[in-house]
Amino acid sequence: MASGARHVFGDGSGPPIGLRFADRRAQWAFVLDPYLKMGELFMEGRLLVEQGDIYQALDLLLGELRGKPEPLPARLLHKLRFALRCFAQRNGLTRSRRNVAHHYDLDGRLYDLFLDHDRQYSCAYYDREDLTLEEAQAAKRRHIAAKLALRGGERVLDIGSGWGGLGLYLAGVAGAREVLGVTLSEEQLALARRRAAQGGLADRVTFELRDYRTLDGAFDRIVSVGMFEHVGVTQYRTFFEKARDLLAPDGVMLLHTIGLSDGPWFTNPWIDKYIFPGGALPALSEMLPLIEKAGLVVTDVEVLRLHYAFTLRDWRARFLARREEAARLYDERFCRMWEFYLAASEAAFRHQGAVVFQLQLARRQDAVPLTRGYIEMAEAALERKERCGGLAAAAE
Amino acid sequence: MASGARHVFGDGSGPPIGLRFADRRAQWAFVLDPYLKMGELFMEGRLLVEQGDIYQALDLLLGELRGKPEPLPARLLHKLRFALRCFAQRNGLTRSRRNVAHHYDLDGRLYDLFLDHDRQYSCAYYDREDLTLEEAQAAKRRHIAAKLALRGGERVLDIGSGWGGLGLYLAGVAGAREVLGVTLSEEQLALARRRAAQGGLADRVTFELRDYRTLDGAFDRIVSVGMFEHVGVTQYRTFFEKARDLLAPDGVMLLHTIGLSDGPWFTNPWIDKYIFPGGALPALSEMLPLIEKAGLVVTDVEVLRLHYAFTLRDWRARFLARREEAARLYDERFCRMWEFYLAASEAAFRHQGAVVFQLQLARRQDAVPLTRGYIEMAEAALERKERCGGLAAAAE
Repeated sequence: MASGARHVFGDGSGPPIGLRFADRRAQWAFVLDPYLKMGELFMEGRLLVEQGDIYQALDLLLGELRGKPEPLPARLLHKLRFALRCFAQRNGLTRSRRNVAHHYDLDGRLYDLFLDHDRQYSCAYYDREDLTLEEAQAAKRRHIAAKLALRGGERVLDIGSGWGGLGLYLAGVAGAREVLGVTLSEEQLALARRRAAQGGLADRVTFELRDYRTLDGAFDRIVSVGMFEHVGVTQYRTFFEKARDLLAPDGVMLLHTIGLSDGPWFTNPWIDKYIFPGGALPALSEMLPLIEKAGLVVTDVEVLRLHYAFTLRDWRARFLARREEAARLYDERFCRMWEFYLAASEAAFRHQGAVVFQLQLARRQDAVPLTRGYIEMAEAALERKERCGGLAAAAE
Repeated sequence: MASGARHVFGDGSGPPIGLRFADRRAQWAFVLDPYLKMGELFMEGRLLVEQGDIYQALDLLLGELRGKPEPLPARLLHKLRFALRCFAQRNGLTRSRRNVAHHYDLDGRLYDLFLDHDRQYSCAYYDREDLTLEEAQAAKRRHIAAKLALRGGERVLDIGSGWGGLGLYLAGVAGAREVLGVTLSEEQLALARRRAAQGGLADRVTFELRDYRTLDGAFDRIVSVGMFEHVGVTQYRTFFEKARDLLAPDGVMLLHTIGLSDGPWFTNPWIDKYIFPGGALPALSEMLPLIEKAGLVVTDVEVLRLHYAFTLRDWRARFLARREEAARLYDERFCRMWEFYLAASEAAFRHQGAVVFQLQLARRQDAVPLTRGYIEMAEAALERKERCGGLAAAAE
């Protein structure tokens, strides 16, 4: 049992949080580099939460620190990390594949413990804060499909196609003629292919283990959801130039990515080391110059605020409810790591300026309708179609 | 009568356009610097449109040139103008006032010749391309008011309040408790004040001849429509920092400005010389870094494409229908200048990447609702209110 000093703190608005460091070195490590060490100490059992839970601790700490200047050593460390981020994110073809495998090739049963039944592993869309995860992920699929302004018969590219849910939806329900989904995860690929076959969509929905940078051809629609976070600053320009090359002249692209509303920043070092190596969250100011230079036209930018906090809240609740199963798949340390990942991410969306950007891009400004009304109309039409068995029919 | 060579050209899709230069020098001037000289020659009657009209000529020329590389001398001239734009746009307090007076202190009767009855002098909002100007300007007012997410009782600042139409609408119909509108045009100020008094809103809607940079205090809502185009690149940072200072912590700001979808560029030299001295159209990549650094959060970006082309088409048709009245107010040269201004602007929206950005900004990411549904709901509510005599009641 930990013998170090116990710290109880709170802001009076909720129950107090009790933390204990296992030893003095743990406490010093935390003070000197909390961004890296808090997660590590928690994983190693050297930072114990004795009252409340790790999310409540992070929520309180980051809420308190919000907008306050940090001490000089921390600021110097931040500047250094910011300066060095290009090195950490030299994501060539080989490295990208390794980075992706690190996370997405984990045992698929782990993802079943906390994701929705469609394994949507990105921000859901909450009309109301109290939607269920399944409802909000269904709404997200509709929202993205609607913004792709499909008229029926399009050829769609899904960059970072995950376990295939969105691609199957676009072909099975939303009217795409053909979908090519590319992923760098073999586990994702295998399941996505299995699902396409089971759903009778294998002739129209193809999944490949392939880096988008190696693709050719022209696509009427491009969608990329939760993949841009793995691109890395050194490859942003390549991403947008390649997207322009792959997009048909009258095409529409929808880029859905976590980003930072406060401006460019470095990747949290704990997340980089344990969860998403080589990843980065873009600010709009980092993407816009490259989008303009690539010759893409921004036709719409939605900033989904707090939706990912709700998503992560729901994922964490589901994960904790089935924590024992996770511990049987991996081990205790892994479970603590995963809990910290979900908790710290939620806190970042509440307190550290993390948001989700949905950028709709085109090569011509008249590629999408004059006003946004078509989005809601398409969502309603898709919902009707789902109810009338569009999904069931597609799965037969 | 002009004796120079006649040029007839067309792309086969419409009737051919016939241009005649009055003399050889005119032709050379056009070739060497069309961005400045085409308008000047047209004003001076040295470039005559003998078949079609000046809009059709511009539409055809710019459509043909679109995406094609320009000859080296033109590119060098562009680079020079781009490099020098900071000098042309040192818009301090005195210069800004002079720049604004140049355009907005023209005889008010001129604006009545082509604007809608509310004198909305900015891009209208066309649900459908065939709305009337009056309908589309009413829709624009509703769209902006809706995006301000007014709950009733707010104190609103309108930066660049024009002839007062929007400010009066926000207080008279949309539920703002109090509106302060600032303009640098004495003509606009006088009419706006007269309208506030006539509408019985003078106690709640105040107009002042004042530079926004001299304001203090906190506003629940800030709106700025068609004013940012006069700010100039050297003052962009000041604009966003001042806006942040003036915005209440839970406030919402709506910035409506013409901009460039292709990236930063210089101001058209003819427009700068004759129409909007010191003006500039921003690219998103120019605004975003400054917005982030100012500590403002982008909560939504709508890109209105083609709406201003329709607006300008309608303005030009109205202006040409009453051209003789304009000639009596000013003279023939002025009328040609005005026609060229409206025609060239429309062509820029069709062929040169000009768009309108509506940026919704806040200081906190939860200042506006989770999804965009509230916008359409508020528009519908405002429309009902207008029909039930909200406007009439306000004007009593």
